[in-house]
Parts: sequence; structure tokens; C-alpha cells
Amino acid sequence: MTTLTQNSVPKWVQLNNELMIAKDGSYQFEKDKEAVHSYFVDYVNQNTVFFHDLEEKMEYLVKNDYYEEELLDLYTMDEIKEVMNVAYNKKFRFPSFMSAFKFYNDYALKTNDKTKILERYEDRVAIVALFFGKGDVNKAKDLVKAMISQEFQPATPTFLNAGRKRRGELVSCFLLEVNDSLNDISRAVDISMQLSKLGGGVALNLSKLRAKGEAIKDVANATKGVVGVMKLLDNAFRYADQMGQRQGSGAAYLNIFHADINDFLDTRKISADEDVRVKTLSIGVVIPDKFIELMREDKDAYLFYPHTVYKAYGEHLDEMNMEDMYETLVDDPRVRKEKINPRRLFQKLAILRSESGYPYIMFADNVNKAHANNHISNVKFSNLCSEILQASQVSTYNDYDQEDDIGLDISCNLGSINIMNVMKNRSLEQTVSLATDALTRVSESTNITNAPAVRHANEKMKSIGLGAMNLHGYLAEQHIAYESPEARDFANTFFMAMNFYSIKRSAEIARDRGETYYRYDESTYATGDYFTPYLTTNFTPQYDKVATLFEGMHIPTIDDWKELQAFVQEHGLFHSYRLAIAPTGSISYVQSATASVMPIMERIEERTYGNSKTYYPMPGLTANNWFFFKEAYDMDMFKVVDMIGTIQQHIDQGISFTLFLKDTMTTRDLNRIDLYAHHKGVKTIYYARTKDTGQDDCLSCVV
Amino acid sequence: MTTLTQNSVPKWVQLNNELMIAKDGSYQFEKDKEAVHSYFVDYVNQNTVFFHDLEEKMEYLVKNDYYEEELLDLYTMDEIKEVMNVAYNKKFRFPSFMSAFKFYNDYALKTNDKTKILERYEDRVAIVALFFGKGDVNKAKDLVKAMISQEFQPATPTFLNAGRKRRGELVSCFLLEVNDSLNDISRAVDISMQLSKLGGGVALNLSKLRAKGEAIKDVANATKGVVGVMKLLDNAFRYADQMGQRQGSGAAYLNIFHADINDFLDTRKISADEDVRVKTLSIGVVIPDKFIELMREDKDAYLFYPHTVYKAYGEHLDEMNMEDMYETLVDDPRVRKEKINPRRLFQKLAILRSESGYPYIMFADNVNKAHANNHISNVKFSNLCSEILQASQVSTYNDYDQEDDIGLDISCNLGSINIMNVMKNRSLEQTVSLATDALTRVSESTNITNAPAVRHANEKMKSIGLGAMNLHGYLAEQHIAYESPEARDFANTFFMAMNFYSIKRSAEIARDRGETYYRYDESTYATGDYFTPYLTTNFTPQYDKVATLFEGMHIPTIDDWKELQAFVQEHGLFHSYRLAIAPTGSISYVQSATASVMPIMERIEERTYGNSKTYYPMPGLTANNWFFFKEAYDMDMFKVVDMIGTIQQHIDQGISFTLFLKDTMTTRDLNRIDLYAHHKGVKTIYYARTKDTGQDDCLSCVV
Ligand SMILES: Nc1ncnc2c1ncn2[C@@H]1O[C@H](COP(=O)(O)OP(=O)(O)OP(=O)(O)O)[C@@H](O)[C@H]1O
Ligand SMILES: Nc1ncnc2c1ncn2[C@@H]1O[C@H](COP(=O)(O)OP(=O)(O)OP(=O)(O)O)[C@@H](O)[C@H]1O
Ligand SMILES: Nc1ncnc2c1ncn2[C@@H]1O[C@H](COP(=O)(O)OP(=O)(O)O)[C@@H](O)[C@H]1O
Ligand SMILES: Nc1ncnc2c1ncn2[C@@H]1O[C@H](COP(=O)(O)OP(=O)(O)O)[C@@H](O)[C@H]1O
Ligand SMILES: [Mg+2]
Ligand SMILES: [Mg+2]
Repeated sequence: MTTLTQNSVPKWVQLNNELMIAKDGSYQFEKDKEAVHSYFVDYVNQNTVFFHDLEEKMEYLVKNDYYEEELLDLYTMDEIKEVMNVAYNKKFRFPSFMSAFKFYNDYALKTNDKTKILERYEDRVAIVALFFGKGDVNKAKDLVKAMISQEFQPATPTFLNAGRKRRGELVSCFLLEVNDSLNDISRAVDISMQLSKLGGGVALNLSKLRAKGEAIKDVANATKGVVGVMKLLDNAFRYADQMGQRQGSGAAYLNIFHADINDFLDTRKISADEDVRVKTLSIGVVIPDKFIELMREDKDAYLFYPHTVYKAYGEHLDEMNMEDMYETLVDDPRVRKEKINPRRLFQKLAILRSESGYPYIMFADNVNKAHANNHISNVKFSNLCSEILQASQVSTYNDYDQEDDIGLDISCNLGSINIMNVMKNRSLEQTVSLATDALTRVSESTNITNAPAVRHANEKMKSIGLGAMNLHGYLAEQHIAYESPEARDFANTFFMAMNFYSIKRSAEIARDRGETYYRYDESTYATGDYFTPYLTTNFTPQYDKVATLFEGMHIPTIDDWKELQAFVQEHGLFHSYRLAIAPTGSISYVQSATASVMPIMERIEERTYGNSKTYYPMPGLTANNWFFFKEAYDMDMFKVVDMIGTIQQHIDQGISFTLFLKDTMTTRDLNRIDLYAHHKGVKTIYYARTKDTGQDDCLSCVV
Repeated sequence: MTTLTQNSVPKWVQLNNELMIAKDGSYQFEKDKEAVHSYFVDYVNQNTVFFHDLEEKMEYLVKNDYYEEELLDLYTMDEIKEVMNVAYNKKFRFPSFMSAFKFYNDYALKTNDKTKILERYEDRVAIVALFFGKGDVNKAKDLVKAMISQEFQPATPTFLNAGRKRRGELVSCFLLEVNDSLNDISRAVDISMQLSKLGGGVALNLSKLRAKGEAIKDVANATKGVVGVMKLLDNAFRYADQMGQRQGSGAAYLNIFHADINDFLDTRKISADEDVRVKTLSIGVVIPDKFIELMREDKDAYLFYPHTVYKAYGEHLDEMNMEDMYETLVDDPRVRKEKINPRRLFQKLAILRSESGYPYIMFADNVNKAHANNHISNVKFSNLCSEILQASQVSTYNDYDQEDDIGLDISCNLGSINIMNVMKNRSLEQTVSLATDALTRVSESTNITNAPAVRHANEKMKSIGLGAMNLHGYLAEQHIAYESPEARDFANTFFMAMNFYSIKRSAEIARDRGETYYRYDESTYATGDYFTPYLTTNFTPQYDKVATLFEGMHIPTIDDWKELQAFVQEHGLFHSYRLAIAPTGSISYVQSATASVMPIMERIEERTYGNSKTYYPMPGLTANNWFFFKEAYDMDMFKVVDMIGTIQQHIDQGISFTLFLKDTMTTRDLNRIDLYAHHKGVKTIYYARTKDTGQDDCLSCVV
């Protein structure tokens, strides 16, 4: 599919480019419709392999190891046809060149030499639906409808791989705990490579590793600490990519009280020495409230050497509640520690983020105060995009001839609903319900041999992560400003309802299967604590304009929540975690949606392919709603925090929340936003993106 | 032991420095005797922990986890005393400051805080002997005598660690085969770290890995090839050091016909990009005769893509006999290949070696033509110092829930005899015999859980590597020039005899235990082919002067060899490999010997410790024999090759053979030496050391 990089600029690109030529004081958005038309007529259709009928096609694809025979065998040919027909009868049309191009370039099945197209969008959607259906043709038909209507969209690995014979995993995202021995570190590197090969992004919790200079076998000053391990991981991800198709991706998280925290942060300094710099590994810092308290009070803070903590208490630093333990550790002479100025460290975070976007931040207590499964473990880290927040238990990998002690790592399969379409079609409950079924199916068909604690967790925890996209697009279409209270009012109701239906469906599955997740009984769902806010606060719309949007849809009331609680108490929940809002960085293009719940970055994105540029106006953008498609960098970040804080109340896991900073912003400003986000209950902050406004003084120097 | 870096220069260093002040036209070598005296009186004795008697000392050392109780329990206290007495009664005195300093700084047991000495040389030697004795007090007494007389010296890991409670492994040296899957590569990285932690140097055979751009699961162009794996290993060795005490060390070997050979070599280019450069990993190239033939004939040569070879033949490229297979592979369209100019590649080796010393070279057919165990496998690679050459079989590490298929890796424990002292004491046979027993004991007490194929090989192969040191020192003392035919005549007889006694002892052990090594029956020892040269050639001295040296010692004759062959045919051999000449880079200082069988580098070495310099005249150097201590850089390298080629005939494994080059030498000169060495049966060339003579034009530019 190298057409776009050929010498002469193809017609569809020319047409796409013409949209940028102003006419009557506006861009010619309609030109992009011509572009996508030409892309199909002149390119896609001409390069799609022809088959006489579906039988012939299926036979060919199975015979040539493109499709998984076992999947198709679950259905009769008539059933497959039925499902295909739902897709084709929809007469789906990509509304923009970019959406079509993304699908046909990145997702559609192609011949081995990559020159010919074997799958149209309808085919991919149907095959994915057949996979979700697992032989149940009605379920498959419901799901093909939800997907072709673009109400529900599985994340890239599922959408790309389901039904294929030679494929990567269906799961996006893995989180590994790392224990503190050479065996464990070796295994963490190994498992990271294995998962990377399967196509997953992998995050690792490094907070249990002893810090640089701690003892090994009581020999002082022997360890290389966290950075040594990060270098191993960085190289592992650079080596083990997704079989040459996508770069390996990893992230490392560290608790801010870990004595290596400064070295950890310095790995991302542009000016860092090669021996201590990491190139591909993303980094994230886990900040307990205790640290924020010390900072507010401008007191000294102590960093701790984790191995001395573990030796003294038999418990890991990152599993301690710092509210209770901090002073104890400070006073304990057995615990090695180092005094620092917490404000300076916090400022350092801001400087680094303005330079490189890293580290991500996880406010540990915001996460754990809302966490339903603290009885399994506290949440100690997050993932590559900082939306996954789950309990985990560290494994111990022993010497070659001994049994390993397998704990609970984390895997999570993601998908999103398209807010615009579920609102339009009044299908929120049904879509959430179908999506929950679909993601459950993914989690059940995942079985990763070489990551035993992931497998173990998958069996026990059955976690999924349903998110949403197109928030900004929908609001703009409704002429509601993203920063307005009406927007938050909408989100508050919408995500409350989404949460409601997600819990409901999880309880239904538990009922139907007579099975709940591991230690559900001790969760705050079981105790009922989880429901308290919903029984005391009314989350229905406050603004008339917002109420209108929901007209004709039932919005769960306090009474409904009471009923739901009773239902849950009767049947339990099937999923330990249900919701997580991923960035939808790639897949939102296919959906012609704005990404995730974030504001757009640019009204019209410019992309370079080969020698030609292409333009992607935000879906639905017109001269009329131009104002409502306000770019993130022009927004008041405090208002964006308000929006994320609002949504976060209803999401059991996290939200990939990107900060958008102008380079005129000081580190003090950034820290103020951080503290405000913490105050508003935000759980994680993903990248901090800085826009170069062309001003001279760099943000990190303005301190 | 930081005394030497303190502010004021200690007395012993001052005295040592005075040896450099010329007096009556010569250095004052006797000043160094005063230096070592002062070092003992003013430092060692004052910092040695005092005990009332041996009982008290042993009790303290056991109680405080310094000594292994299980070892001492094998003997009565009286027996331990007897062994100690042999050592102390010898009244051993270090003849130079450096020899004493090396021992007390690097080898002697010290208190945990490293400030006080717990072991004198006599103690260490006695404890090591007790270890070797394994409860047999007479054996321990024989060995303590051989060691305190400096006839036999175990290699660093054994000498340093034997008898200690908290210790690294006793074995120096590991060689790992690496199979071509992600599981195998992960395991290779893991095992490398585990062995490095135990103190071993690790070499890996990377010739089985598919080359850059080969297919994975038939997806073309997906692999990163050998260099990607080297980067992983390089980082692993940098991370896993010997618990902070010594840097981790590794080497990678590649067959010259592997398609990644150029990238492999470029990893050591000083100017290489960081992404493809390795920093700690040594590299070695395996060169079959076929390559040399193509080069001589100035024909094109082909590099092969190993995965295509393996897919076509079910056999690995590095296990094929290139004499037979080269043309077949060239003609086979299934095998992907690349045409190169072999002379240019060979010249590249020379350029790189003059820049960086790397790669080492292994002449594969010189090794394999002499190899007694080709029925187990051909020799495919060597070790960190290129003296170990053994058969190996690759393992396959499977997915987490499956059994692994464990092959034969290589471990080898090393030791050396001191030529000067065995010649003086007329104790060659006895020393070789005792040394063989001692190294056998080491190999039997090695059990490395986390390297299963090493363990497996150790059980089956029972290989050891006895070498020799002080060749140059002995020759100089006898006023024989290293480059002279007399010198080679001596070496020829000496190493023939050493080989004889080594075979004899191995057969005796086989007889006594009724056990031979794995598949001994098919070896050329069993068939008798091994003995042919010794039954047809007379290796007794040709020169009277040399014959004089051996006076009073029996030199094995052809008849003796006949008898030995019969003896072997009756009982078999216990060890699959017996001899290997290591560089003795550290331990020769303690022995006051010139290193290995190589010429000296400098008559007087200068070392910097902290702010002070110390001087080490070669042991035995006087104004009288100054000429015979000719420095390696001044020698004719062709004559040195003659010496190594002579010795190599009698050594079943290899010799760490360093080339010494002046920077006035051209790459053409270096290649001529290489080819001469190949012609003379040299098996491996270790570093190429270049001396900067201060001339401007750099060697690599003179091409
Ligand atoms: N994800 C990856 N990234 C980089 N290299 C890889 C990856 N997966 C495999 N390789 C390399 O490709 C080679 C084959 O690996 P492996 O045997 O694990 O793959 P496989 O899935 O079994 O495919 P095949 O059937 O081709 O062997 C090895 O050299 C391995 O290191
Ligand atoms: N050889 C080594 N080089 C670098 N780091 C090491 C090495 N050995 C261990 N470490 C690090 O030290 C920590 C402890 O490792 P491990 O548990 O394997 O050691 P141990 O021998 O069991 O000693 P301890 O009893 O202190 O745990 C880990 O963080 C590990 O990565
Ligand atoms: N390069 C990558 N390699 C592997 N996994 C990734 C990568 N980028 C993102 N992921 C995983 O996918 C999850 C979802 O990210 P998202 O941007 O929503 O993906 P998409 O839009 O492609 O479905 C992330 O949380 C992360 O775990
Ligand atoms: N830095 C090192 N770390 C681990 N092993 C090493 C190192 N240097 C050498 N070795 C191993 O020891 C073997 C013998 O080397 P040698 O110089 O004779 O050691 P020594 O003089 O210390 O006994 C080498 O072949 C190699 O396998
Ligand atoms: Mg340990
Ligand atoms: Mg394979």
C-alpha cells in the first residue's frame, strides 16, 4: 500500500489538498468527500481481490492461512452470510479520506506481499463480530450492527487481529509486577519481550527493586538499582518489536518515595549520559498523598531504600499505606533514607514534563480511595497510557529447578463506545451491554503461555476496559463548549449511565454464569460502599439543554441505583474492572471521531506521507461549529481538569488524560494544574504535551 | 585496603619507587625486596587480625560466615593443622612488592568492612588444598605443597573462592550455545546474567541466529539479527556484575559465513553509532578453511542467511562442514546469500583489530582437525580468552509450560603449572597429576542450577583446562631467547611431556573410578588416531642445551607413548578435555611468573594506584639477563607464532595467544601473520595489542 508515496501525487490526495484552498471565506470541506470517493474508485476498488461469491472468498482465505478455520467452523455459511449482510446492508461510507485511508492502510487484511486488499471494512467488522459471537449468530448480528453503526469499536489489537490465522494477541495492554531478585528481573525482561512480540504494550512496576547502592547478600554497595533494570528493559523493547510491524512499547513506574526516584527521572533527560538514558521506555511516577501533604507544608521529605524497608517489615514499600507508615519509617533506624526537599522534586517533575512529556503521574490515593478491590491489593502502578488501574500481586520466579510462585499481573482488553452515535441512536444501554459481552469474549480467548501471572490474573480477575470516544465531537455538534458547565453536566450524566449499564451487564453475566471474579465478596461492590455516592447524589442533568439531549432515553435515577445495588448483591459481578478510557489514538480515525474524552489538538491535522501532505479536518467540522472545535492548547486547562474529574467519578479505572501546555507556561503554572487535578480526584496524568508557540524562552528555563 | 591511595605515599611504595633510580648503570632491583619487607612489617602484619591459635581462628571464621563449616568438618582439627603446617613450614616469602600486594589486595579474605586481613597467603593455600582434598588429608598435603612451592596455581575463581562461605563460583569460564527463538534468546540473556553474578566470564555462540532481515513466521524482513541480540547481551553484562566486585564479562562469537558478519564486526568500531555499538562484549570470528581458500584464490565468497539454510537442510550453518557444503549452499536457490570479496573482509578484520584489538579469531578447521570429540559435535566457538575449545550441543528452551530440551553447554575450570618451578623441582609428572586431581574436584563441586545445559555438560564431559605460565621467565633465566629454536625445542618437549602426564592421570582416574566421559568410546583417543603423531614423531630435545635442562627427569619416549595408548585403550579417559592455556592475567603476579606462554610486554611494568606509581620488574629480571627479557613488541611475531604453533600440537584445547603489533605495521603485515599462524596450526588468536610508538600515521590508515 505504498501508493501515497509514489512519485506522482494521486488524485485523491490532490482532492484532499484542495480542501485547504479557501473559497467564500471558508475551507472547502466538501472536497474531502470527493477525495474519499476517488480513493475508493481509483484505488481501493481497483486493488481489492475479486471473488465470485462469499464461499469462494472464505475458502480461499482459510486455505491460504489468512483466516482461522476454527472460527468460521462455528457457523454455517448461511450464518456467515447473514452477518456479512448486516454489515453490507448498512451501506457504510467513510466520510473523509483520512478515515478510509487509516482503515485500508493499517487494518484491512492484505495479501502477503501487501499489494492487494482482501478485506473491506464491512468484512473486517463482520469477522470481528463472528469472533465475538463465538458461534452465537444472533450475538454476532447484534455486534456487527453495533460496529457497522460505529457505536462500538474494539481497540486496535482486537479489531486488527480477530479471526486472522497468523496474528498477534487481541489484548492491548499488560502490566507486570517485578520482584527484587535477579531471577525475577530476568523473567520480567523475558516476559516483556514475549508480550511485545505478541503486540502488547507492557508497563512494569519497579518500586520493589532495591535502590542503587543497597546490599546484595549483605555486601554493601553492590546494586545498580532501578536504572540498571530500566536499561535492560529499554533494550528489550527495542529488540522485541511486533515482528517488525510496530515498535515495542514499554513503561516503567516508580513510587516517588523510592530512593532511586531522581535517577529514575533523569533517564528521560535529553542531556542525560547515554549510560543512564532510556530511549523507548516511558516513565511514570506514583505519588501518594503523603508526599503532597509534605510538599504543601513545605517540610523535608525522606526517600527510602526499599530493601531496608522490606528487611525490617517484611512488606514492600509500594504496598504500604504511607499515611500510616511514613513517620514510622522515618523514625526507624533500620530503614536507610535520604532527606530531600519535596517542592524541589515536584518542580523537577514539571521541568522534565515540559522538556519531554514524561513522567506520567499517578495520584496513588485518588486511585486507592475509589478502589473497590483494595482487599486484593492496592493499585501500585498503571499502564502505557495510564488508563489501567488494577490490583496486582507480585510473583517470585525461582531457580531453574524450582516451582515459581505465580502472582497476579494485569492484562486488559480495551474498546470504546462512540458517544455521538450511541446518543443519536439512543443505544447507550444496548451498546454498553454488547461491548461488555464482546470484551469479555476477548478476555476469555486470551491465553498467554509465556506470561504465567498474566494468564493467572486473566483467569481470576476477568477485567475489561470499556471507554468512550468522540466527546468533543459530540459536544461541538451540539454547540456546547467543551469548557462549559453544560459540557460537564452532559458528561456527568452520560458516564454515570455508562457505569450503571456496565455494572448491570457485569452482574447479569455473573448471574447467567453463576460466577463472580476472584474475591468479589470482599469488594466494596459486595459491601455496598461502592454505591453510596449514587444513592446520595443525583447525577441526572442539571441544565435543560443537556436534559434535551437525553430525551427519549432513560437516565438511571437514585431508585434505579438502589435496584441495581440489590441486583449486584444478589448475583455479584463478573468483572473485577470494567471501565477505562484509552486514548483511542489510532482507532478514532476509523470511527471519524475525536479521540477519547479529550479536546481536539488541531481543527485540521496535517500529515505527511512520502512526499505529499494530507489534511484531516475534525469529523463534523464546518464553518458553523468552528468555534466549538476549540483546540486544546487554547483551552483553560483547569476547565479540562474539571471535565476529567467529573468523568473520573464514574470510571472504576482511569482515563488517559493528556495535559496541553503552551510553552509560555511556567513550571509553577504546571504544578498548580497538577495540584488542582489531584484536588479534583483525577487519578492519572498521561503526557504533558507542550506546544511550541514560537516564543524564545523555553518553558523549563522560566522557573 | 585503600592504603595505597592515602595522601602520604607509604614507605613501601617509596622503596618500590627507588628501584627505578639507576645506580652503577643499573636499576636497583634489590630495593623492591626492601619494599616488600616494609609492606609486610608496616602494613600486612599490622592489619592482620590476631588469634591465639588455629582453633580460635577457625571457630571465629566459621561462626561469622567467612568459612564453610561443611568443608572444615571433613577434617579433624589436627589434620587441618597438619595441612597448615606444610604451608607455614615452607617459609614462603613474596619476592616482590607487586606479588605480595596482588595477593593481599585481591585474594586474601578480609573482614566485612574490608579493613583487616583474615588470611595470610599460607592460609589461603591451605584452605584451597583442604577443599581439593575433600577429606583426604594426604591429598590435601600433597596439594598444599604443590601450591606453596608455586608449582601449581588454580585460576582466580577457585583460588579466591574455595572454602569461603559467601562466595562466587569456582569456575572461570562458561560457553553458551544460543538457539534461534525468542525463548532461547531470553534464556541466553538470563543465564549470562546468572553466571556473571557467580563470577564467570561467558561466551556465546550467535552463529545460529537468523540474520537481519530474515523472516519470522514467514513474514519477510522482520528480524533484527545478531546485533540486536548483542545489544541485549552487552547490557546484561553491564547490569549483572560480580556483585559489585568485578565487572561482568562476555564474548560473542560468529561464523564468518553468517550474513550478519559485517554488522557484527562493526559493533566494535569506535565510530559506530550508539545503537549498534557494544561496549563490554568482546567479539570473536570463527573462520573455516574454506574462507581462507577463497581468499587465497581471490574468488568471490558468499555469506549465507542461516535461517534459510536451516529451513532447507534441517541443519545449522555453523555445524556444517564448509569444505563439503559451501558449493552446495552457493548453488541452492532456497538459500539466501550475499556476494562479498573475501580479501576485503579479511582486511577489515585487520583494520578493526589494529583499532580495537577485536575480533578474536578462531581457525575452525585447525581446531576441528585436531579435535578428539568431533563425534559429539564440531567446535563452534571459544571463550572470553579464546583458550577453551570444546564440543557443544544447542538447547531448546520452550514456552513457559513446556519441558526444555537441554543440550550441552560448556564450563571449564582452569589452573596452571609454573614451568620454572616444576623444572627446578623436577616435579612435572607429579604436579600435572595433582593439578588434574584438583581441577577434577572443582568440576565435581560445580552445580549451577540456573544454567541447566552447563550443569548437564559438567556431569557428562568433566572437562578441565590445565595450562602453564612462566615460559618466558624460565627461558630468560636459562639464557635462552624466546624467539630461538632452542626455546621451541624446550617447549616442544615440555608440553609433549605435560600432555603425556595429563593423559596418563586422566586414564588413571578413569581406571580408579571405572568411569569415562560421555561417548569417550567414539573419540580419537579410543580409536587410537589421537596417538599417531606421538608414535611417529620423536619429541625429545634436539638441542644439547635443552637436553641439559631436562637432565634427571624422565622424558616420555615413543615407547612410553605406545604404552600409554594401551593403557588408555584399557581404561579410557575421564576428562573429555584436559589442557588449555589461559592468559593468567591476574594470578601470574601472585606466582611471580611471566604470564602464560607469551613473551612479556614490558621489562618493568608501571602501575598507578591512587596518586602513587608502583613498579614491577619482571620476576628474575637482572642486569645480566636483561637481553633475554626481550619485550613482545620488539619480537618477530612470526617467531612467536612458531612458538605457539609448537606448543599447540600438544594442547587438546587452545592457547590464549595475543599478537603484539607496533603501530608502524600495516594491515597487510597483520594479515600475513594471520595466514602464517593459520598455516602453523595455531587455533585461536586472542587480542591484537597495538603499541603506540608515537608515530603519526595510524595503522588502520596505512592500508
Ligand atoms: N518480536 C520480535 N522482535 C524481534 N525479533 C524477534 C521477535 N520474535 C522473534 N524474533 C526473532 O526471530 C527469530 C525466531 O524467533 P521465534 O522462534 O521465537 O519466532 P517464531 O514465532 O517461532 O517464528 P518462526 O516460526 O519463524 O521461528 C529469533 O531470532 C528471534 O529472536
Ligand atoms: N550480579 C548482580 N549484578 C547486579 N545486580 C545484582 C546482581 N545480583 C543481584 N543483583 C540485584 O540485587 C537484588 C537482589 O538479587 P537476588 O535476590 O538475585 O540476590 P541474592 O543473591 O538472593 O541476595 P539477597 O539475599 O541480598 O537477595 C536484585 O535487585 C538484583 O537485580
Ligand atoms: N505502540 C504500542 N504498542 C503496544 N501497545 C500499545 C501501543 N500504543 C498503545 N498501546 C496499548 O493500547 C492501549 C490503548 O491505546 P489506544 O491509543 O486507545 O489504542 P488504539 O487507538 O490503537 O486502539 C494503551 O493503553 C496501550 O496499553
Ligand atoms: N572479568 C572476568 N570476569 C569473569 N571471568 C573472567 C574475566 N576475565 C577472565 N575470565 C575467565 O577466566 C579465564 C582465565 O583467565 P585468566 O586471565 O587466566 O584468569 P586469572 O589469571 O584471573 O586466573 C578466562 O578464560 C575467562 O573465562
Ligand atoms: Mg534474594
Ligand atoms: Mg520459531
